[in-house]
Amino acid sequence: MQVSFFLCNFAAQNACKHTKHLEMNTIGSKWRFTSFGESHGKAIGGVLDGVPAGLVINYGLIRAALDRRAGRNQKGKMGVSARAAGEEDEVEWLSGVMERDQGTKDQEQRELVSLGTPIAFLIRNKNCRSEDYEYLKHHYRPGHADRVYEIKYGIRDWRGGGRASARETAGRVVAGSIAKQALLEKGIGIHAELIQVGTETDPALFEGYIRAIQAEGDSTGGIVQCTITGVPAGTGEPIFDKLQAHLAFAMMSINGCKGFDYGSGFGGIGEKGSTANQDSGGISGGIADGGPIVFRCVFKPTASTPKAGVKGRHDACIAVRAVEVVEAMAALCLTGMGLTK
Amino acid sequence: MQVSFFLCNFAAQNACKHTKHLEMNTIGSKWRFTSFGESHGKAIGGVLDGVPAGLVINYGLIRAALDRRAGRNQKGKMGVSARAAGEEDEVEWLSGVMERDQGTKDQEQRELVSLGTPIAFLIRNKNCRSEDYEYLKHHYRPGHADRVYEIKYGIRDWRGGGRASARETAGRVVAGSIAKQALLEKGIGIHAELIQVGTETDPALFEGYIRAIQAEGDSTGGIVQCTITGVPAGTGEPIFDKLQAHLAFAMMSINGCKGFDYGSGFGGIGEKGSTANQDSGGISGGIADGGPIVFRCVFKPTASTPKAGVKGRHDACIAVRAVEVVEAMAALCLTGMGLTK
Amino acid sequence: MQVSFFLCNFAAQNACKHTKHLEMNTIGSKWRFTSFGESHGKAIGGVLDGVPAGLVINYGLIRAALDRRAGRNQKGKMGVSARAAGEEDEVEWLSGVMERDQGTKDQEQRELVSLGTPIAFLIRNKNCRSEDYEYLKHHYRPGHADRVYEIKYGIRDWRGGGRASARETAGRVVAGSIAKQALLEKGIGIHAELIQVGTETDPALFEGYIRAIQAEGDSTGGIVQCTITGVPAGTGEPIFDKLQAHLAFAMMSINGCKGFDYGSGFGGIGEKGSTANQDSGGISGGIADGGPIVFRCVFKPTASTPKAGVKGRHDACIAVRAVEVVEAMAALCLTGMGLTK
Amino acid sequence: MQVSFFLCNFAAQNACKHTKHLEMNTIGSKWRFTSFGESHGKAIGGVLDGVPAGLVINYGLIRAALDRRAGRNQKGKMGVSARAAGEEDEVEWLSGVMERDQGTKDQEQRELVSLGTPIAFLIRNKNCRSEDYEYLKHHYRPGHADRVYEIKYGIRDWRGGGRASARETAGRVVAGSIAKQALLEKGIGIHAELIQVGTETDPALFEGYIRAIQAEGDSTGGIVQCTITGVPAGTGEPIFDKLQAHLAFAMMSINGCKGFDYGSGFGGIGEKGSTANQDSGGISGGIADGGPIVFRCVFKPTASTPKAGVKGRHDACIAVRAVEVVEAMAALCLTGMGLTK
Repeated sequence: MQVSFFLCNFAAQNACKHTKHLEMNTIGSKWRFTSFGESHGKAIGGVLDGVPAGLVINYGLIRAALDRRAGRNQKGKMGVSARAAGEEDEVEWLSGVMERDQGTKDQEQRELVSLGTPIAFLIRNKNCRSEDYEYLKHHYRPGHADRVYEIKYGIRDWRGGGRASARETAGRVVAGSIAKQALLEKGIGIHAELIQVGTETDPALFEGYIRAIQAEGDSTGGIVQCTITGVPAGTGEPIFDKLQAHLAFAMMSINGCKGFDYGSGFGGIGEKGSTANQDSGGISGGIADGGPIVFRCVFKPTASTPKAGVKGRHDACIAVRAVEVVEAMAALCLTGMGLTK
Repeated sequence: MQVSFFLCNFAAQNACKHTKHLEMNTIGSKWRFTSFGESHGKAIGGVLDGVPAGLVINYGLIRAALDRRAGRNQKGKMGVSARAAGEEDEVEWLSGVMERDQGTKDQEQRELVSLGTPIAFLIRNKNCRSEDYEYLKHHYRPGHADRVYEIKYGIRDWRGGGRASARETAGRVVAGSIAKQALLEKGIGIHAELIQVGTETDPALFEGYIRAIQAEGDSTGGIVQCTITGVPAGTGEPIFDKLQAHLAFAMMSINGCKGFDYGSGFGGIGEKGSTANQDSGGISGGIADGGPIVFRCVFKPTASTPKAGVKGRHDACIAVRAVEVVEAMAALCLTGMGLTK
Repeated sequence: MQVSFFLCNFAAQNACKHTKHLEMNTIGSKWRFTSFGESHGKAIGGVLDGVPAGLVINYGLIRAALDRRAGRNQKGKMGVSARAAGEEDEVEWLSGVMERDQGTKDQEQRELVSLGTPIAFLIRNKNCRSEDYEYLKHHYRPGHADRVYEIKYGIRDWRGGGRASARETAGRVVAGSIAKQALLEKGIGIHAELIQVGTETDPALFEGYIRAIQAEGDSTGGIVQCTITGVPAGTGEPIFDKLQAHLAFAMMSINGCKGFDYGSGFGGIGEKGSTANQDSGGISGGIADGGPIVFRCVFKPTASTPKAGVKGRHDACIAVRAVEVVEAMAALCLTGMGLTK
Repeated sequence: MQVSFFLCNFAAQNACKHTKHLEMNTIGSKWRFTSFGESHGKAIGGVLDGVPAGLVINYGLIRAALDRRAGRNQKGKMGVSARAAGEEDEVEWLSGVMERDQGTKDQEQRELVSLGTPIAFLIRNKNCRSEDYEYLKHHYRPGHADRVYEIKYGIRDWRGGGRASARETAGRVVAGSIAKQALLEKGIGIHAELIQVGTETDPALFEGYIRAIQAEGDSTGGIVQCTITGVPAGTGEPIFDKLQAHLAFAMMSINGCKGFDYGSGFGGIGEKGSTANQDSGGISGGIADGGPIVFRCVFKPTASTPKAGVKGRHDACIAVRAVEVVEAMAALCLTGMGLTK
């Protein structure tokens, strides 16, 4: 590993005084996911604790989720966000699972069985085009977290944004896919999709819209809507641990997400109580009512575009790849609350 | 205390199987607030743990906050939501504080000093007009949590919505006022205000708008905007414990709140990355950047209106009284994250 | 309330820098008990969160547990530790329960039904003989926490030790009795007893031993053994959340407890692996094996005795009254781990 | 990786109903250590979260601690517990640290600098002599957790005890060494040592005692005493989060530990309050008093000895190697409570 780094200031530990550690890099209560890894360090990965023994995990589904997150295998449709093929994310399983059938060589057919112990995994970082990032070494990127990281840690790992990089979400997607598979066994389905790109709300026109923005070297925001079916009525708590509060927490932890609403949301502001359809969004008083849970997340247009003079690979619409992350975080939110028990 | 209750089903404990207890009625990490009390039981109250010894607490400020939450003392302006004067919320301090000066009789001048031990307090419930609620005993209210509560607990405490009642927020306001006072000592200010009522965005017209809705026996939604100044750059965590995630969690725990956004939020969806003002809302990559933090919460129009045939006292615009609760929860969020350390 | 207090130092908040708040005054995960109240403040009490709806609570059992903790109603046997009759602990229920039958006036027959919401209660402090404590105002008591409290909080509430007082355990006993009743419904029984007083191991001789010590104005230590039956095999976690670790945590939180062991414990040190009976104490690898769980706690002789020149009421053997607290904390430990689910 | 496994029962997930997940494989609040890995799976390791940026970590100290845990490099003294040289534990750093100086090749001189992000590391499992363990596949070992694991998880990973293996403690020792280094910077020193082996209390005679036991194919228990200096007075909380409660929790999480005491402990049972030295053990009322903190842990004689007919490598006295684990857990306990802040 190439190991130069930019140590801004040896008052690092003093600068750290504002660091209010809470759960930090861990999310969830019954299932707990801990994320680790810098984007251009040795590896990114995670530990998923709380998975019961005997869960059969389809590795092909995990790979497919990683491909969607990376903008691959989108049948060309969303190729606008596709990354180079060489960046494939191979998951190395360190603990907590065993191969169910050694004979099968087909990656898509591989099945893992959970042992009931913490599932640790990593994805090695490779193919780092650090020359693109070299430029950033001495330049703050507009709208990025570079400056606050330096303030917070005293050390800014400038190579690709460090922890703030979207690459960190690959670990969430691996854990989230396991969570989705466990939830599906309980009859709980999660489906997210883009419902708006910029001002465009017709999905048939999304790809053209994004390609045009990309051609300009610019970027656009988008809204991802997620529908969860099969959550048992009674899930959630009435006061602080409201179901919508946990979902909002999980979504607002995704990079670039600037807002969350559910049911009638912000869009219902113009209606009166008597005529409003009172769209509960599947949650009433903090507790699931048994119907589909519907929420939305808005993602901002990224500021670090070619048009703004920032080199490196960038998405014209981060909401495209965020779809997979929204599903993953929704799944980790629900398993974290104990839905697989 | 009147003690009849509606025990729906003696399979209560079985019905409870979906109860996924997490922190339940507690919020915060460094300061922890635990809320208790049914709206028409003996008392509501709370325990605020983590307050350092020696904090001087102005009781007058707590009373003023309670009055605003109750729609009292609004100088007539927001009288549209005012409750009867007899419902005054007298706080009884059980532990954790001592009176600083016994001589002063003026409630507004009273000062308490924290002992460093848990601050427990209660507000007794009185003046219950249970006849209004008697009607509800056998009727689910539209858009209310009555049905999910019965599913969840097997017992529906029909008298005023039990825990789901807005009355529970009085405890949050007491704790939140203490938190605001502690934060102000550290130079952190919190200010929330109504910025939209229904389709109206001119504050000068809000009162008229609400009175008209109320005259119709109807209700309207509203948007509360909150600005926090003085949060040190570096506050927050980059991955899951993002500052905006904690704020969203705290806000989505308020009854009737259907959405949260910050900075450019949902409103910024139409802008391109190159031209967007990239309004960070004071948070970058999950971490405060030192500027004012600005977020918004949307509150739905309540469904249980006279027009919908529901008796009892109801607000034409719950967002009016929510202003105080938004401030309280923002304060508890920040002290919960350790901002007073 | 008499409100003078001893504010050592107005650098109180600075002195607080060593305050490492964790869960602080709360214990447990699935059931969470939060304790509040200073020994000679207005009241002590607590909030017990996580109790499912529909649990029938026998108030007579709670009263009996409080009596044992206070050294009352011991059929004369352990009267050596008895407190004055005037100090009876009347529990005032603030929330979370409703009386099952109003007609019955007999305290011992009263039944409460849980609502699934937080159970808050208080016991008012009365009959404070503050003249005994006045002496302590300017004297540190040997072996007491007075000095560290002053260092920690900057404020020393000298009246009876503040939070450090044994009185705080009354709240634990109320919550613990509810927990014991819920566990018993699941077939889990908890029984603690004195097995050693000073060097005496014959229970028939304990009372005489203690009376002799008391007559000398002195004090002695004791060992409490607790047996838990009916814990399902498989309870506990193999690494950090070992069952014995949680039990040890709960026991070491009791004032005066200087050690914890289980199974073969410290006493098995002289045996070899081949001949040792390998007394598992009901726990293997951190997990219950289905047999009775047996552990012990040692309580020190209190240092603040008449012989040492310290006035006020003191126990010759705090282990006598600790028996009830050991049972309460064992019950809260198990409900905290989710045993009633 | 060899991947056969023993799937006892496909009712695995049902068997799991007693699994009461709490923090599970994570310990600590301000610094959080998550452990992963089965003893004879691919790797064991951990994630240490909360370490501030800029901490300089001496890798040589970590290696030395791992050697002591493995019974290596004991200068012959404790060679009785030494493992084969081929079992060296090479740490692979995945994230959270960077090499300070690439030039130096000497392992002992290597220095790592923390980045403020989660430190993830692994130690690959190699040199597995699975033939020794093959025997165990169909035999429960006396005094081991094999049976409860099968009950709990439905899957018993028989190869070396899975998570229950002492090998899991290597991860604790790596994290604990980092914690010790951070604590030492704050002037806090931790030193553990054997003070009793079987009935022997003279350290000069320990090695001979153990060799004799080993020659018999038998095992003996031992007591480890740990002294912590430099903990600021005021550390700890007065009620549940007592310092001794956290230390007891950490120690009782070590395999084979059957008891914990501090200060006068169990040994002080025969003394009277007036004459007892009232050895506080450095903690008063749950809070550090500024003096040295002294506690002890008793370790049982392992039951799986050659004399009992159990093959495989076993220690005649697990307390020897536990010394290092006691230090590691003490350090993780203190950093977990926030002592490095």
